This record gives sequence, C-alpha cells and structure tokens, in this order.
Amino acid sequence: MPELMIPLDSSLTKPLYEQIYDYIRMNIADGKISHGEKLPSTRFLSAHLQVSRSTVAVAYDQLLSEGYIESAPCRGYYASDISGLYLGEEAASAALPPPIPAERYRIVFSPDENEFSCFPYAAWRKISRDILSQDDASLLTAGETAGEWELREAICRYLYRARGVSCRPGQIVIGAGNEYLLLLLAQVLGPGKRVAMENPTYLKAYRTLSNMGYRMLTFPAGKNGIEAEQLQQTDAEIVYTMPSHQFPMGTVMPLKQRLKLLQWAAAKTGRYIIEDDHDSEFRYKGKPIPSLQGSDTHGTVIYIGTFSKSISPAIRVSYMVLPKPQIAAYQKSCGFYASTVPKEQQRVLAAFLNDGYFERYLNKMRRIYKAKHDSFLALLKKEAWVKHIYGDYAGVHLLVELGAAMDAREVVRQAKKQGIRIYALEEYLAPGAKANRPDVGKTLLLGYGALQEAQMKEGIACIRRIVTGTA
Amino acid sequence: MPELMIPLDSSLTKPLYEQIYDYIRMNIADGKISHGEKLPSTRFLSAHLQVSRSTVAVAYDQLLSEGYIESAPCRGYYASDISGLYLGEEAASAALPPPIPAERYRIVFSPDENEFSCFPYAAWRKISRDILSQDDASLLTAGETAGEWELREAICRYLYRARGVSCRPGQIVIGAGNEYLLLLLAQVLGPGKRVAMENPTYLKAYRTLSNMGYRMLTFPAGKNGIEAEQLQQTDAEIVYTMPSHQFPMGTVMPLKQRLKLLQWAAAKTGRYIIEDDHDSEFRYKGKPIPSLQGSDTHGTVIYIGTFSKSISPAIRVSYMVLPKPQIAAYQKSCGFYASTVPKEQQRVLAAFLNDGYFERYLNKMRRIYKAKHDSFLALLKKEAWVKHIYGDYAGVHLLVELGAAMDAREVVRQAKKQGIRIYALEEYLAPGAKANRPDVGKTLLLGYGALQEAQMKEGIACIRRIVTGTA
Repeated sequence: MPELMIPLDSSLTKPLYEQIYDYIRMNIADGKISHGEKLPSTRFLSAHLQVSRSTVAVAYDQLLSEGYIESAPCRGYYASDISGLYLGEEAASAALPPPIPAERYRIVFSPDENEFSCFPYAAWRKISRDILSQDDASLLTAGETAGEWELREAICRYLYRARGVSCRPGQIVIGAGNEYLLLLLAQVLGPGKRVAMENPTYLKAYRTLSNMGYRMLTFPAGKNGIEAEQLQQTDAEIVYTMPSHQFPMGTVMPLKQRLKLLQWAAAKTGRYIIEDDHDSEFRYKGKPIPSLQGSDTHGTVIYIGTFSKSISPAIRVSYMVLPKPQIAAYQKSCGFYASTVPKEQQRVLAAFLNDGYFERYLNKMRRIYKAKHDSFLALLKKEAWVKHIYGDYAGVHLLVELGAAMDAREVVRQAKKQGIRIYALEEYLAPGAKANRPDVGKTLLLGYGALQEAQMKEGIACIRRIVTGTA
Repeated sequence: MPELMIPLDSSLTKPLYEQIYDYIRMNIADGKISHGEKLPSTRFLSAHLQVSRSTVAVAYDQLLSEGYIESAPCRGYYASDISGLYLGEEAASAALPPPIPAERYRIVFSPDENEFSCFPYAAWRKISRDILSQDDASLLTAGETAGEWELREAICRYLYRARGVSCRPGQIVIGAGNEYLLLLLAQVLGPGKRVAMENPTYLKAYRTLSNMGYRMLTFPAGKNGIEAEQLQQTDAEIVYTMPSHQFPMGTVMPLKQRLKLLQWAAAKTGRYIIEDDHDSEFRYKGKPIPSLQGSDTHGTVIYIGTFSKSISPAIRVSYMVLPKPQIAAYQKSCGFYASTVPKEQQRVLAAFLNDGYFERYLNKMRRIYKAKHDSFLALLKKEAWVKHIYGDYAGVHLLVELGAAMDAREVVRQAKKQGIRIYALEEYLAPGAKANRPDVGKTLLLGYGALQEAQMKEGIACIRRIVTGTA
C-alpha cells in the first residue's frame, strides 16, 4: 500500500478533497502508484490525514469515475491500469496531424501567402493592448450576432470609399472566413439552387456550395469571365463570379458584360450574383475597378470581401454585404447564429481601420507587391520557355503558359522533387469538369506575394532546367 | 471654382496623388465643394500645385471612379451630388441593427449569461500580451485547418481529466461555436439524415441541423432524456442528446439508458450519437458524470464541447471530437476549410489551459454558481406559488412549475412590462412540435448565473405579484 503522505493545505482555495484527488491521480499517472496496488481505505486515510471521511470519499469517487482507481466489493480500492487510457502526448499516429510544414519546400510560389514584413505590428499590438485593457466585462459579454456594429460601420465606410460598394452597416455580416459566409448564404437563399461558376475557379467556394447541396454548373473561364449569354442557356439561378479579378485566371470583366450580368439577374425573381471581391485591393495599372455591387439597383448582388489577402488569413475576418431584400431572410434563417469572430478581434480590427492604419498599410503593400510583380514579370519575360504570360498587373500571382511540349503537372511534379512548389493551373479546375481550352494543361500558376527576388530567380532557374531537360 | 489650396507634403509616405484625392474628397464630403461646382482642370491644378499633370489625373480618375466627381466632355470636371451615395453614419433605419441592449430589462433571468467578476482578466491579458509580443510573422501566417495543435492537445488533456473523454488531439476540430461545428458535421455525415432530439431542447442545434436539410424528429423530454426504445420505433439515424445535463430540462441520463443508447448506435452502420456536453462543468451534487463518449467502443459518438459556458460566449471557441472512423470523411469534405478561430486566440486559450488558469477558474466558478444556486433554490422554496422545482444542482438555471392557473407565457409577458425578463419553458419547444406533458406550459425557466441575490429577490417578488394577482 502506498504511503500517501499527502501534503494538504487548508489555506488553499483548492478544496481538500481535490488536493487528495490530485495527489493520487498524479501518482498513478506517473507510475508512482502502480497498476493493481491497493489504496488505503477511506477510514484509514481520513484518520491519517486528519480530514473527514466524506472528504476522502469524494476524492475516491472522482478517481473511480475517471477510471484511475477501481473498487472491489469488500476488498477496497486498487489503482487501475491506465496505460491504455490516456492518449494525449504520445499520440504519434494522430489522426488529424498538423499540416506538413511549408519548410519542406525551399521555395513556395503560393498564390495565398502574403508578405508580412511591413505589417504595422507595433500599431496592431498597441490597439490590442488598448482594447484588452478596456473595461473587463464588455470583453466577455456576448457580441452582436451579425458582427460588432463599430466594425460594420468601419467596413461600410471603407467599401464605399475603396470599392464603390453602396450599403449600410446593417447590410453587413461579419464572419470567420469566406467559406463560413457561404455556408450562411446557402441557408439564406435556400436549398437546391443551381450555381454557375467560371472554371478554373476558387475551389473552396465551389466545394462549399457543392457541400451545401447546390448543383454546380461550370463554364470555361473565357477572356472576360462568365457571360450573361452563357447563363441564358442554362437553368442557373445564381452566378458566383469575381468580376474585378477572377481567380485564378486574372481576368477583369468589362463594364458592358457586367451590366448584362446585372440585367440577367434582374430579369427573373430568385436570381442572384455572388460577387467575390477577394483581392481587388491589389491592382497596379489603370483605374480602380469599382464593384459590381455598386451598379446593382435591383438588390441582386451579394458582395463578399475578406481581410485574408489585405491583412492575413490568420485573422479570419470576412464580410458579406446582403441586398436589402435578403435581410429578412437572413434574420429568419441565420439570425440566431452568434458571430464567429471574437468580439475582441472585431474591436481591434475596427480601430485598425478607423485610425487609418489599414489604408496606409494597403497603400504600402500595393507598392511592395507592384515592385515584386514588376521584377517577377521582367524575369519571366526573359525566359525562352515562356510562351505567354497573363493575369498580370493585379493580385499576387501570374499565369505562365509553357512553350515546351511538357505538361504543367509534370513540371510541378519535378519541381517538387527539387524542393520548389509551383502550381499547375489544372489544380484549380472544378472536380469532374474539363476546361475546354487546350492551354490550361500547359499553364503554370506562380504566386510571388511572399517571395524575394533571389527566390524568384532560383525558382525560375529550376523551372527552366526542367522544361529544357537540363535538370 | 474652389481654390483648392491643397497642402501637399512630399515627405509623407502617402503619395501626392492621394493627398490631392483625399483633400478633394473630404471637401466634397463636407460640402465645402458643393454639388455642381466646377473643379480646376488637371493642367491648371498641376501648375498651381507644382506637380506633374499625371499626378492630378490619377487623383481625378480615382474621384471619378468613386463617384465624387463627374466629367462633362470638353467642359471639365464637376463635383457630384453625393447626398444619396454615402449611407454610413446616418443609417438611422439600418437593416441589421445592433440587438436591443439588455439594459432594456432591469433584471434578466437568462440561462446564457455568465458571471464574469472573477475572471482572471490580469492573467488573460498577460498571456495575450506574451502571445502578441512573440515573433511577428507567426501571428499572421495561416494556422492549422482543424485548429492549432497546441490547443487541441490542451483540450485533449482537459477532456480526459475532467470528462473521461478518450481521444487523441488529432480527433479534435476547433471551431467558432457549436453551430459552426454542426454545420461542418452535417457535411461530414452527409445530406438528408434523420435526427432525433429531445423536446424542449437547445433550439440553435435544432435550427442548424434543420437548416442543413436534416429531418428532425422530436421526442417529449422524459424524466431521463431520450431512450433507445423510442428510437427503435423510428427511422432516426442520428440522435442529438445532452446526457450529462439536458438543456433546458436539466435531466441526467442514467447509466443503463446510456449504454442502451450506445448499443442502439452500434447496432446499425451509419447511426451516430451527437453528445452535446455544454455545461457539465457546473455540477453541485453527486459524482461527476463522465461523458458518453468515454464509454463508446464503436466510434459512434461525436462529442461537442464549448468554452462559451465555462469562459464566455465572446471568445467563440468550441470543439468537436470525431470518432476515428469519421476522420477520413472529415478530411475529404471539410479538410479544406480554414479554422474559424484566429490563431492568436487559440494560442492564448492553449496557454490559459496549460498554465492551469482554466481549471482554477472553473473550480472558483463552480463554488460561485453553487452559492448562487443554493440561495436561489432556498428563495424559491419559500414561495407558495411554486408547485415544483426541477433541473437543480447543475448548470445555471432552474425550472419552476407554477401552482397557479396562469400560463407561464402570460407571466413572462407581464414580467416584461415590469422590466424583468423571465422565460417560459415553452420557448424552448421545437417549432411545430408539441410537448405532450401538460406541465410544460406551466413552467418557468429562470437563469441565475449572472444575478446577485438582491436581483433574485426582486425578480421573485415580481413573479409572486403577477401570479397572485397583486401586481
């Protein structure tokens, strides 16, 4: 029988029974009390420790209920065999492991990774500290379901100024990421809709809407994005499009085509346009392209934007602007969902916007990404294996059509072996759908947002060696 | 023509064109340049300000694209009528306004509101500051899709210790709230399932699953929660239950019934039990009740827990423990979703758990809520109009059956008029479903978690006056 010299301290806030429970539990977990070892009776231990017998009994009950000890009728308590029970730390064969760290590749030409070196960390921290140090209770009380009003106001102002989006804060819903907002939107619009998307496309949106039971119709992404004439020939009710900068094709929808799209939507009740305006902040040439939403007079456009590109995917804040006629449907089907973004985070972001940090940071990043874009484009233009470059002058990736006979997927595969991750445009094709453009299979997608010039050069040299067979 | 003495400063990081743009925009927004007023030509303004003509042109282009100015061919630029455009601040008739503040009621007997006065704000702030001050980039890079590994490990340890949940961190998915996790789970389990729930119940779960197209079957909540025998008589595939503390009935499912439920699930492929363990931390009598998940040997239990009750709904963190056989389905249908909880928040919470603050706080709150429970119960027991009290010794609300002939809803209505919010048990009935217990309509639900004794007394006195007709 173990000695159980339990150091009890009645001045602690931790109750005595819990001190006993903790001591025994730890000793069993550590193997100091081993499997099958008999524990002292409650009577003996209570006398030994000078505590009431019920205190010991409560501790034993808890140990029993958690499986640390077992009782044998008329014989007392024994330490259990816990070797099979606790599977925390040693979970080597864990089921949902952390993703393979990016360091597996020396260089990643990701279209999703941002450059963070110029982020105003000091300002962000200062705002966070200020918000944290504000009155206690308001940090913990439940926030507003559609998002904190101050953040919705700040986003409303920003969207009007920067994107020509015309809305009131009351039309804005804040959510933890675009996909979450699409999950809500599908509940607002109702089940079983038919959705048209360009292809290749932003696959997470495709998968989300498909998961929600929507029937997906894809259209080969043309020079200008999806056309109303194409939609007319289908029974599509909803079109998901990125008119300001289609991902991944980088196309911009011309004004005339936009107006036709709006007319298509207005022509029949129940038609909607989901405008995904994911990275329109980063445009390096020409006039800014105002949102489709700003031209919508029939309440058919649902505008979705995000801070994932403009700040970081880690902060998990996106927003959706609902047309006024959809507000009631939102309230009815989704009004009960609490906001998915912590209140504290929303307040920090609102201050970041209201104090001008966000737009200053955007302006800085636009210059930085433009410089990266210019370097990368210049480097690629010198390469003999490059047949055609498109998707330039916006966003943080380029599309590069190979002149060689080699398939893009094969180049991706060989580059991986050399520790360099590049992407094939085909990776962005909707499942089951084939792009009817033969060049898709020959096209690489190369993101440069997080890369320095030396990395661009090294990556390009690697691709050159692969496509020219000198690897 | 306005003077446009624009104070340009080329030492600023803000480019000159933007300084011009900002100045004109502000002056138009403020009404200093009024509707229809002609603006100087780009040639004139560039000479006047000693900047290149293209700098002015870029500023004008932006103002044009955003609708602040208009151009008339061969005549120049004019300030637009923006009165109808910007609808931010003055949005009096806003569509999704902030919720009616709780102060409308003097006293709210809410089952969802927590007591925050003992929260270790100082520790939370210190951890937050520490996390914030850690290396810059890791704060902004994308996190792990199922949640930060360190938080999943911490939750795994906590669940094993406190709830007897047997799992590995790799089975845990972190999400922004229970409803979000249910949205994911419905995608994992697939469309069109039939779900059994007790009634009355946690309506947000009912609505979420119903929104996902699931067919909902409800069973009058009996003395012990849903029974396997009831399920046998239906085609239910999934049962959503709260065996440790049913909301709102406060019942605990007996061990034998739990085992039968597990047998029901194991008897046929595709049957699952969703165990919602929302507030089992707060139990004031008897042995802790281990989770159903801990007894599941067939991988049929999906365990869902939350920090909304134990810390606060404002932090928006829940977790779901998937049975191992469902991991692959999760990866396939939901693996692409980025986590909805900001990385920073997850790291703060992990440290809060790992440093022992969470369990100490829980212990403290258990004592505080127990004291509130005891006072409230004692106060209610003195009341002649109280026929029966149930749901006691756990959670932060009680159910009170009225002895009077008056319906609970009528008492709620009259109390509202006096600034006191109490709840009728009927408010928690699933839509369309009728509870077959006659006492449901006579029962009040009274939450006490956020109330002080004086408020309890005042509220009880108000109810007494209403039910005895002395109001």
